[in-house]
Formats: sequence, structure tokens, C-alpha cells
Amino acid sequence: MINRNFSNLVENYLFAEIESRSAAYRAANPDKTLLKMGIGDWTAPLCPAVTDALRKASSEMGTPDGFRGYGPYQGYGFLREAISGYYAARGTQVAPDDIFVSDGAKSDTGNITDLFSESATVMIADPVYPVYNDTNVMSGRKIIFADANEENGFLPMPDESTRADVIYLCTPNNPCGTAYTRDKLAQWVEFATRTGALLLCDFAYEAYVTDPDLPRSVYEIPGARDCAIEFCSLSKTAGFTGVRCGWTVIPKELTRDGVNLNAMWLRRQSTKFNGVSYIVQRGAAAVFTPAGQAQTGAQVAAFKANAKMIYDAVTSCGIHCEGGRNSPYVWLKCPDGMGSWDFFDLLLNEEQIICTPGAGFGKNGEGYARLSAFSPREVSTEAMRRFTARFGGHC
Amino acid sequence: MINRNFSNLVENYLFAEIESRSAAYRAANPDKTLLKMGIGDWTAPLCPAVTDALRKASSEMGTPDGFRGYGPYQGYGFLREAISGYYAARGTQVAPDDIFVSDGAKSDTGNITDLFSESATVMIADPVYPVYNDTNVMSGRKIIFADANEENGFLPMPDESTRADVIYLCTPNNPCGTAYTRDKLAQWVEFATRTGALLLCDFAYEAYVTDPDLPRSVYEIPGARDCAIEFCSLSKTAGFTGVRCGWTVIPKELTRDGVNLNAMWLRRQSTKFNGVSYIVQRGAAAVFTPAGQAQTGAQVAAFKANAKMIYDAVTSCGIHCEGGRNSPYVWLKCPDGMGSWDFFDLLLNEEQIICTPGAGFGKNGEGYARLSAFSPREVSTEAMRRFTARFGGHC
Repeated sequence: MINRNFSNLVENYLFAEIESRSAAYRAANPDKTLLKMGIGDWTAPLCPAVTDALRKASSEMGTPDGFRGYGPYQGYGFLREAISGYYAARGTQVAPDDIFVSDGAKSDTGNITDLFSESATVMIADPVYPVYNDTNVMSGRKIIFADANEENGFLPMPDESTRADVIYLCTPNNPCGTAYTRDKLAQWVEFATRTGALLLCDFAYEAYVTDPDLPRSVYEIPGARDCAIEFCSLSKTAGFTGVRCGWTVIPKELTRDGVNLNAMWLRRQSTKFNGVSYIVQRGAAAVFTPAGQAQTGAQVAAFKANAKMIYDAVTSCGIHCEGGRNSPYVWLKCPDGMGSWDFFDLLLNEEQIICTPGAGFGKNGEGYARLSAFSPREVSTEAMRRFTARFGGHC
Repeated sequence: MINRNFSNLVENYLFAEIESRSAAYRAANPDKTLLKMGIGDWTAPLCPAVTDALRKASSEMGTPDGFRGYGPYQGYGFLREAISGYYAARGTQVAPDDIFVSDGAKSDTGNITDLFSESATVMIADPVYPVYNDTNVMSGRKIIFADANEENGFLPMPDESTRADVIYLCTPNNPCGTAYTRDKLAQWVEFATRTGALLLCDFAYEAYVTDPDLPRSVYEIPGARDCAIEFCSLSKTAGFTGVRCGWTVIPKELTRDGVNLNAMWLRRQSTKFNGVSYIVQRGAAAVFTPAGQAQTGAQVAAFKANAKMIYDAVTSCGIHCEGGRNSPYVWLKCPDGMGSWDFFDLLLNEEQIICTPGAGFGKNGEGYARLSAFSPREVSTEAMRRFTARFGGHC
């Protein structure tokens, strides 16, 4: 009776292993403070526009006229309109009916697999955000890996020799910090259109893009509405890691095998989900007000400044790295040919810095590590001071 | 590439059809007000203990010291401790590690199917809460129906001639308003223990139980920790329909096919879910404070008074009904042998009352209708005034 696919999962979840080794270090060294540069966990407080909206909605729910029970499965109109406007301000057409409010991109990137048959073939990059892999392992699908490595700048491109039904793309990329240009993403859209593949595009980090050559949505690419689903999140845009809100775009006209995917996902959500908290949706809508955009924009800019500082510090040591510009992540090649977990242990034990071992994201991540820019400025600065002191750079 | 099981779903979701017919009536009769006695959608404002906690947590998240990012996948300790205490106060032992905080019982009763193989056989009652059926249709499992009808008082008991791997039980029952006694539930536990079946027990309405012979948790029954998972919700206990919080209990020692289900669910949740909003968890914890228990208890008591009034009014018309005592639902036999949807249309068009047609819950629901006690007192009173005037009763 048990789903045996679970036994094919690799035993330790990456962040659980990091936490386990960090906890062991803390227990053995109670006087030392660890500098968290590992998990992408936003650290700035929620901005005033958001907390005001959360408080107001909380109060509203305590009044007879303001109380709201079950909400629309797809999300409240006020929030879907605001998200649609967020796209429109950048010249991208995404209608409120294309949008499904979610409790975060992670839930939806995992649950979307309900729409596919077990015999569907899935293509993911290596290295990759583990959720894409693990959710498909759980449902027993065949997974093809597209190598991301130094040769292709950690941005795999379509391979004419392989076919997949579903292709996951993450840009700006987690973990590599790299991002597809509009031209490169258009090659994926062309490939999907020609082969009938469906693109699942994770744009959780779109707010970090400032380079005008880099797309912030797949729907900037002509033809994408017929071949792509997009996942977005307020976690890394407005600090909603602990508040939980994101959205998924499934264009109304998108079909596969003659089935309308927008209608199919609505059926999935209305059966296995009951919508996002009204209070949270009010907080989310506040992100898209002028005040919310100014306040969260300043927070994102501060993390981007951290990322640049980290990138410059690592580079000053003569260590190769990617990202750090249109991304909150810096992806570095471990010095002296070290393995990922050896490098993790070195940074942990010698410098009290927690990084994320690249090997945790796939075989091509071996020998790499990810540094996150989401710690407070003073933590990031102290971490890079120690890092450059050890590896002969400056910051 | 598409999951073809979705094509086996019945086209119209029950509540969507009710909404569609109601909307058509409203459009044709803009001067009439509809009395909503259909969907179980709580209507009282959130109590002060909860709104205070929600506001406080919202403010806290706006401060550097109070901000919280990703939370524990299983839910914060403060909430799991509070829930454990809620059980302990009734003499039931459920440890914090047995508890998984969810965004509502609907999500978890649906997503739990990830743990089972496609070849697992599932048993559900008929009539039944549609989610149990539809989520298993979506994943292509064989479904066996246990008839709930007048002969067994709408409480099906184990049938020695049938075997199932997974058995859903809902008590107090949605839609029938009936509830298993401790003796009857013990027969299910004994059957599951003997046959190796797993019980999935939905106790979303446990707060409505006042009769001491009726269990409020499956874990009141000896042996249940080795054969049962329990789903609970704050939707019908504290008005969290729009706030979204519930919990699932999977005892640490529960295994099937040699697999520990608590560990398996944790793996599922840590991969496809990122926890419930911190703010919502603080609001949920407030429900279990003395003030929260007093305030939500008074709200539940008011809805129970509605339910009794509805039960008495229907009975006064000489119409047979179930529920209404330890449940917010009254399940009535449509008068004059009418079909469920004909009766729905009659109440809608002639009396402006919206009920839920029993046929929407399964074939044994044909000829029945559900009335919900969750409307405000004045709405319920007016609805039953019209109902009794039409069918010759009094209220």
C-alpha cells in the first residue's frame, strides 16, 4: 500500500544535513557564533507597508462586516489584479485569470507534478534546486539531467538529441546565481514549441534582475504563453519566507495533450487546497502598492549590495565564481580542488562560516559552494573578512 | 504526458454547481436576499484572543528581533505544544512530535495520498466529503464505497467481506451530522488492526461533541496509535476558514509495509511544503489559551444552538433528519420523495434558502439535503421560519 518511490530519495535532505553539522559544531563550541551564509533565508524585517496591511486585515477579521471565511481557490481578485499590474508595469501581459495565488513557489513547484502522468519524462538541470528532483522521484518519473557547468556558464541550453515532456528552468538560478539572457530563454521557448515540451519556469529571484538583457518573466518571450508555466514568490522579493505567499501563472490558452492546464490546475487546487490566508493575501497585495514597492525595493537593493560585496571578495582571492550581480547567490569553485563538503567543514570549523555545499545540488555541484547574500550586512561583512583573510584576498 | 486520471473526475464540483445556480437566481431576482444554509462556512468574526495574537505577530515580524523567516516544516514548537495540551486536557496522549501543523485539513487529507501506492485500495463512505473521493480518483486508485444509509444510521461499520488498505472515517460526519460512539469507533480500530488497514480519521468537527459517549479523537481508542492518522482543523473550531490552519497527527510508532509514516510524511512535507505562516500559527496558538478557549467555545456553542433549532424545526415538519446535536449539520430526507437537486431548486426558488443537495456527496445522498448551522442566528431563524411555514412545522 505504500508509495515505494520514496525509498529512491537520497536519504539526507541537504539543509537538514547542514543543520545537523552546524548543530554538532555549536554543541562542541558553545562560545562561538556561526555566520550563516548558507540557506537563502531573508533576514530583514517585513516592511511597514506589509505589516500595516497584515495588522489591518487581522483587525478586519475580528469584525462582523470584515470577517471572511473560505476565499476563492485561485486567490482574491484584489491580489491577482495587483500581480497582473506588477507584470504590466514591465510591459508583460499576464491576466488575473492566468494567476493562482499560492502559499509559496515551493508548494506549487512540487504539487504541479499532480498534472503529469507517471510516464512523463522530466528534464532538470544539474546542479538544481532539490525540490524539482525529489518531487519527481516521489512520483516515480524518469528524470533526465541537463549538465550545468563551466563550459556552458552554468546555463544549460537545449540539446537536440534529447526529448523531455516537462523541463524545469530556474532563472536567476538557484544555486548558481546565473541568469538566462532573453536570447537564450527564447531558444528554450523555441525548443519547447517545436518539441511539445512544457517549460516550468521558476522566477522566484526575478526581483534581483537589473540588467536589461535579462528577462524577469518567461512571458517576455513571444510564444511562451503556449508552452510555459511560471512560478513566483514573495519570499525573496519582500521577505515572505515565514509569511508564505507566491503565485503561479498558467496562461488560459496553455494546453497539452488537448487538456487545458489552467482549468486542470484550478481543479487540482480546488480539490486539494483551500486558498491562502486572507490576512496573508492582504499583506501580499501591499507589496505591490507604491509604498510597498519602494520599501521592498530598498531591501532587495541592500541584499544585492551584499551579493556584490561577496562576489568581489571571493574574486579578490583569485577564486572563480558566478552570480552575485542579478542574483542573491554567489557560486564559487572551492579552492585547491577541495570537495564541497570538505570545504563546508573547513569554513564551518575554521572560520565559523556556514555555506551550502554545491554537491547537495547534484553531481556537477561537487567542488563548488553557494554563498547567500541574505544575511544582515554586518554578518556578511564579517564572513567575507574572515574568508579573504584565509584565502588571500581583500574586502 | 498528462495525468489522465483527471478525466475520470465528475465534471462539476458540488459547491461550484450550487454557486452557479445561486448566481443565476440572484441575476434573475436582484431584489431577493438568499439565506445561505449550504456550505459549512463559519460566519462569526474571529475572537479577540486570536485577532490580538495575529496583530501582535504581524508587528513582531516588522522588527529586526521579531522577524522570522523559514519556520520548522512540522510547525512551531509553541503551537504543537499547545495542541498536545489540548488533547491532554481531555486525557488523550498526543505528543508534539506526533503533530504536523497544516494550512487546513483539506490540504492534508488530499496530500496524504502521496504516501500510498497507486495500487492501494481505498474505502470511503457514501455519502462522503468529496475531497476523499476526488483526490483518489486523481491518482487512479481503486475506491470501494461503504454504504451509509437509514439502515445503519448513516454510520457504516466494518464489512468482513471487503478489504481495503486505506479507510477514511469522518466523525462527527460531514455531510450526515452523525457521529460514531466510542464502541463503534473501537470496532473500526479492531478491524484495522486485524486486517492491516490504515484509518484516516477526519475529526474537523470534534469541537461540536458534547455527548460523553462520543470520542473527540481516534486516540481515545486503545490501539489507534498503531493504525490511525487523524486530521483536525481550526476552521470549524475557531473560524479559521479564511485564516487557514489545522493539524495532522501521525503517531511516531505508526508503520505500514515496514515504513514509518511519521518520517515519510515529514519527508513529503519538507519537500513539497514550507510550513504555515508564522502569523497564522501565533493566531492558532491563541485558540488554546484560556481566553481563546472561552471565546471560541462560546462561538461553537452558538452554532450548536443554531443546529438544535434547525433540527427541531425540521423535525416539527414531520421530516426525518440526522445530526444537529453533536454536529453543525442537519441531514434531512427530502419530503414527498423529492430528489436532492429538485429540493435544492425548490428551496432556492420558492424560499430563497440555499441548502446542499445530498446527491452531491454520493449516490446514497440522493433524496437528502444538508443544512448548515454556520449562518448567523437571524439568518438561520428566518430560513427555518420559511421552511416550517412551507412544510407545516413550527420554530
